[in-house]
Amino acid sequence: MELSRTSPTKILLVVIDGLGGLPDPTTGRTELEIAGTPNLDRLAARGTCGLSEPVAPGVTPGSAPGHLALFGYDPVECNIGRGVLEAVGIGYGLQTGDMAARGNFCTLDDSGLVADRRAGRISTEKCTELCQLLDGMVIDNVRVTTLPVKEHRMVAVFRGNDLAPDLSDSDPQQVGVPPNPVKPLQPEADATAGIVNKFLAQAKARLAAHHSANMVLLRGFSREPGFPTMSEIYKLKPAAIASYPMYRGLAKLVGMEVLETGATMDEEMATLQQSYHDYDFFFLHFKGTDSAGEDGDFARKVKVLEQIDSLLPMATSLEPDVIVVTGDHSTPARLKAHSWHPVPVLLCSRWCRHDRVHEFAETACLSGGLGRIKATQIMPLAMAHALKLAKFGA
Amino acid sequence: MELSRTSPTKILLVVIDGLGGLPDPTTGRTELEIAGTPNLDRLAARGTCGLSEPVAPGVTPGSAPGHLALFGYDPVECNIGRGVLEAVGIGYGLQTGDMAARGNFCTLDDSGLVADRRAGRISTEKCTELCQLLDGMVIDNVRVTTLPVKEHRMVAVFRGNDLAPDLSDSDPQQVGVPPNPVKPLQPEADATAGIVNKFLAQAKARLAAHHSANMVLLRGFSREPGFPTMSEIYKLKPAAIASYPMYRGLAKLVGMEVLETGATMDEEMATLQQSYHDYDFFFLHFKGTDSAGEDGDFARKVKVLEQIDSLLPMATSLEPDVIVVTGDHSTPARLKAHSWHPVPVLLCSRWCRHDRVHEFAETACLSGGLGRIKATQIMPLAMAHALKLAKFGA
Repeated sequence: MELSRTSPTKILLVVIDGLGGLPDPTTGRTELEIAGTPNLDRLAARGTCGLSEPVAPGVTPGSAPGHLALFGYDPVECNIGRGVLEAVGIGYGLQTGDMAARGNFCTLDDSGLVADRRAGRISTEKCTELCQLLDGMVIDNVRVTTLPVKEHRMVAVFRGNDLAPDLSDSDPQQVGVPPNPVKPLQPEADATAGIVNKFLAQAKARLAAHHSANMVLLRGFSREPGFPTMSEIYKLKPAAIASYPMYRGLAKLVGMEVLETGATMDEEMATLQQSYHDYDFFFLHFKGTDSAGEDGDFARKVKVLEQIDSLLPMATSLEPDVIVVTGDHSTPARLKAHSWHPVPVLLCSRWCRHDRVHEFAETACLSGGLGRIKATQIMPLAMAHALKLAKFGA
Repeated sequence: MELSRTSPTKILLVVIDGLGGLPDPTTGRTELEIAGTPNLDRLAARGTCGLSEPVAPGVTPGSAPGHLALFGYDPVECNIGRGVLEAVGIGYGLQTGDMAARGNFCTLDDSGLVADRRAGRISTEKCTELCQLLDGMVIDNVRVTTLPVKEHRMVAVFRGNDLAPDLSDSDPQQVGVPPNPVKPLQPEADATAGIVNKFLAQAKARLAAHHSANMVLLRGFSREPGFPTMSEIYKLKPAAIASYPMYRGLAKLVGMEVLETGATMDEEMATLQQSYHDYDFFFLHFKGTDSAGEDGDFARKVKVLEQIDSLLPMATSLEPDVIVVTGDHSTPARLKAHSWHPVPVLLCSRWCRHDRVHEFAETACLSGGLGRIKATQIMPLAMAHALKLAKFGA
């Protein structure tokens, strides 16, 4: 955005994960419609509301595309690879040029055939111990970092020059066959394939005595995407306040400074208050709504929404010039999953044009002043209302 | 759509041709607003409504782009040639690689100049007889099929290898001049131009004794477009129930199975009931509304809408997982023609987010939960509500 310009105004983007819902059949009202949210409703009445389409009508977004869209990045163009996503999911700070792969510890039988792709689902503690055993190899000037995820799942990060991720998987995705050698899918990936195969040979040697987890299978090689940072695009100094690793990782991918914070929503709010003078853009993430939705727990989702509402004055008392409240996607408790339904969004600033929405909820937002927008349009709107966008054309 | 997946759910797409209208000046109400449609209104109340833009604001679609958009094909990218459209219009099953042209039987005078481009509008019976006279020539391994359309109008279909449709018309579009030789517009169309000119020479010889229709003029050479099928895109097993040839032909172009059915709406509904267990997607087409609109017959359009409404329980009693009711375009009786006005759309499924629309009509749909959508977005939305789309990104 060439129109971006620096100004002293501040933007607060509050992401209530999985915000949107579906009506409970008995009451005909959604989680957000049932929840008592006087502070959100007051903000909706003062601001302007609408509904946001994270990717496209009918498309259910994962967490990564849902958030990238909110940060203003085209979620289809900026789709990130599986290995990178796994590294992001544990909050690992990938650097430009890094290549990542998903891994499984597995069991090979005496003939070297895969007997169990999950090594009997070893404990996360065992996985951590095995990752320490493999960690830090240097092969042809490429350093390999191995990181535990959960149970048998791990991530391998390759750091060096000219790594090319166009590689086939070593994971054969079936048992009774040997692991595949990693093959280059483009001529320029020849050297990288050689490095990965050397890593796998050394890993096999180091793991030999650790039956059932006597080998590791890699898949989904991909490279840190090298997105332009939010500072480059918006001339902002952005900070992320999120307790879950996935969202910290996504914030790092777009160049936000990820602040240390506690696990509770109160602690996240406290972090916002403490750091408020040091940044001009804040991404504040609340996870509980999505978790409750995925568990199919309508009542808990209502309760988390009410908790967020009760904490909201801690943010509004800071008087940010623009406050946006929305979600990365809907997670209706009835569906127990992310969904394609558009997401309520409110934007409050002294430069808002008002609408007639006095309730922050799905049906009420249908008649809001923002209308139906793409999630990628939220950042330009926030920037405009913060008077951080220059005029286009003379 | 790489996200498509197979599931046991079923989608019913009801297309009420030319559905949208304009208010009658005396009552201020449209055809759909005047019509008593309790079943459609109940479906609108249970589901979610909106307005669909077939091509773009202000653009009046023909039947082909209107339907292709509803099937999820970009109507601008997937615009089909004139010759192909004419073949589709008579329901002829074109195969991949086929080339088609529109034809007119015409009158040549003694000097070989076009005296009447329509051969005095010969009868359809005469046209059929002359097409039989020309049908089945084989020229350089290309078989030419000639098919009557109506009065002097016919279609020529060329079937063979490597046919290139970049050809100029033989129809000079004026009288007092000779028919034009067909010329290649690209070097690779040289051979095809030669074949068409040989066909025209032989046609002239065979028609010599059939004054006034002693020649045929060809125009609009185009090739079967080779669209990916709906099965390929959506992993559906789709069936079309349409009594009019044009819509049967369009359904064939996107790979639907076209079911035998009768000419009345009751018979179409009966076909739906009989075939309901054999497919997971149904395109059910009703033509009467468009015909009444084109005739400028407001009252008849109202009556056809009421008939369709009264038949609707035959469809809803099958309990499809998703039912969509919309039109391919508007045909306001007051305009006596297709128009650019957006088209009401309703989508009903147990996974709908409700809105406040309780009437299926143009003005009521303005505040619907679907908002203003492109017609091409209807299929993704139907797929999503049928839980036939996987999540995008993790």
